[in-house]
Amino acid sequence: MKKRLLIVLSVMLITGEISLAQPVQQPTIEDFKPSTKNQPGQEYPMVNSQGYARFRIIAPEARSVVVSLGPGGTRGGTPLSKADDGSWMGTTAGPLEEGFHYYHLTVDGGIFNDPGTLNFYGSTRWESGIEIPAHDQDFYALKDVPHGKVQQILFPSTSTNTSRRAFVYTPPSYEKDKKKRYPVLYLQHGWGEDETAWSNQGHANLIMDNMIAEGKIKPFIIVMTYGMTNDVKMGGMKNFKIEPFQTVLIDELIPYIDANFRTLADQPHRAMAGLSMGGMETKTITLARPDVFSHYGLLSGGTYAPKDIKDKSKVKLIFLSCGSFENATGVKNATTALKESGINAISYISENTRHEFQTWRRSLYELAQLLFVK
Amino acid sequence: MKKRLLIVLSVMLITGEISLAQPVQQPTIEDFKPSTKNQPGQEYPMVNSQGYARFRIIAPEARSVVVSLGPGGTRGGTPLSKADDGSWMGTTAGPLEEGFHYYHLTVDGGIFNDPGTLNFYGSTRWESGIEIPAHDQDFYALKDVPHGKVQQILFPSTSTNTSRRAFVYTPPSYEKDKKKRYPVLYLQHGWGEDETAWSNQGHANLIMDNMIAEGKIKPFIIVMTYGMTNDVKMGGMKNFKIEPFQTVLIDELIPYIDANFRTLADQPHRAMAGLSMGGMETKTITLARPDVFSHYGLLSGGTYAPKDIKDKSKVKLIFLSCGSFENATGVKNATTALKESGINAISYISENTRHEFQTWRRSLYELAQLLFVK
Repeated sequence: MKKRLLIVLSVMLITGEISLAQPVQQPTIEDFKPSTKNQPGQEYPMVNSQGYARFRIIAPEARSVVVSLGPGGTRGGTPLSKADDGSWMGTTAGPLEEGFHYYHLTVDGGIFNDPGTLNFYGSTRWESGIEIPAHDQDFYALKDVPHGKVQQILFPSTSTNTSRRAFVYTPPSYEKDKKKRYPVLYLQHGWGEDETAWSNQGHANLIMDNMIAEGKIKPFIIVMTYGMTNDVKMGGMKNFKIEPFQTVLIDELIPYIDANFRTLADQPHRAMAGLSMGGMETKTITLARPDVFSHYGLLSGGTYAPKDIKDKSKVKLIFLSCGSFENATGVKNATTALKESGINAISYISENTRHEFQTWRRSLYELAQLLFVK
Repeated sequence: MKKRLLIVLSVMLITGEISLAQPVQQPTIEDFKPSTKNQPGQEYPMVNSQGYARFRIIAPEARSVVVSLGPGGTRGGTPLSKADDGSWMGTTAGPLEEGFHYYHLTVDGGIFNDPGTLNFYGSTRWESGIEIPAHDQDFYALKDVPHGKVQQILFPSTSTNTSRRAFVYTPPSYEKDKKKRYPVLYLQHGWGEDETAWSNQGHANLIMDNMIAEGKIKPFIIVMTYGMTNDVKMGGMKNFKIEPFQTVLIDELIPYIDANFRTLADQPHRAMAGLSMGGMETKTITLARPDVFSHYGLLSGGTYAPKDIKDKSKVKLIFLSCGSFENATGVKNATTALKESGINAISYISENTRHEFQTWRRSLYELAQLLFVK
């Protein structure tokens, strides 16, 4: 019986059904540095070259302090302990994945942000953020290259009876040749995030600046606005309706952008993409209005089936992506099916990342090279 | 002896040396509403029509929760108490002054932000903010008028060997008539704040949009960048040196702005103003470089003496302001002295405000009407 179990386990190991990789505990290397997402002058949280994160919180009279972040995407959390100096300290039990993570503290049962870090809008609130240096972080680094602008605009919206905010990225060349017109990508955030996410967490502007400087892409404009128009803040997605956002986007924002920026204001030069819920919005709106967009991108945001596409001649590109720890097979299979039906479909799988911003930074990097090239 | 004391007290009362006003306690009116600076969907903190603030914090196991904010500018704080539902609640002991206030929580000895509110960069950290509705809040309200843009730019800075961030407000007309050029106001934040303050806390863009829509001012550009260039973050002002910031502003930012925006790029069409430490910077730099700026504004940021001004013909305007709870007499006397020396000096005192953003919002409103009019 014992021998049989060993054989079964051995077969599972060989076929990859189980893995022994995780229990090999490496000693923690003491080369911790402040996270690049810290507030100015703040030492903690720190990260080391292995991807471990170390936290330090001042709360002398607290009974317990727990960080919501733990290794392996489990989000089991990291309880902090009282240190000699009376502060609360702790290090994650293992390395975190590369890139950006949202987190918060639970102090005596109450949820607070880490005073050491900058805040980022996610989960319908401003949360703490930490950055685990990625091996490929160069593509979104702030470099000495010409920089485009990220502009906050307030556009009139009669359907919601207010002035709504959007951010518009214009490439460095936009201010130079005043006659040149540009294609536009409408780029949506995920559930619980807002129009600040793609710049703050995603570094979309730096990704564009760097790729333009390297001659990897032709410059285009990116427009980012709030996609949870009918306020599904707390109740999850069950009350979500696409119509209010579709009206804001198609009838109000796009005409405003075309009137106030030097755009190529036609379907062949207009793309829509979004991450997670923003992908779902992208799918719904691009299918409802094939006359408006020609390039579609779903970033960890589902897939299209060939039968979804009524008029294939109108679709120049379908880009599907996700992290390798998400449903990579689904994305690949959907892409194959689209290709076989004659659609220009391309998939991208981000290695060793989940439903997080590192997946979407990399996806934007890949998508940008495919947009408006034909 | 007793009679003599009474007479002395009576004389002091009549001459205004002491006041009996404060002990008259009004009953709290139960018309509390969420502060306009709350995070989306958050009910607390709330404010009522009298200016009282009410806080509610979830921290079931905490021993004490104190809000740093109290009435009368004393900042004595407001301790919260355990409510029936296990949350911590409390109301300020009196009304807070009109406008925006920074604050934070002390939870079991640790400093955290209120999860209910948005964060604003002040005191060298992102702090909680609350808005007490002001009787004159209309001038910085978001209205259905044409809106200018607030653009984030990253400009090259060889002196600090990095790309530095600035925000640029361009008026609504900027995108319409592509030949028109505009004067520029360089507008600085205070100690511990950064280049986000004038938009986030100050609503500088909305103040401008509203005044332009009403025809109260001629449109101009505003440029806001980080003024604590040599990183005096934690050590207070004692290590502050103006030279690094002056180099960034004069030799790097201004040439970049003049090259990338349609400015009137000469001294008569360039103003500098700042609040608090930004006023000190404004004074030092305008006096050192009278060839660069013609209009000077110190907002709760000190005064100029007539002897400071070497060449009066180069100064088109000196604007000095503060809150009535600050050194209003000093500001008025300095203005009188400047006027008597033949300088176009104008003072403004914001009624019933202190060293806070309501003073500076109102000051910008007044200053904007005086800039570039001659």
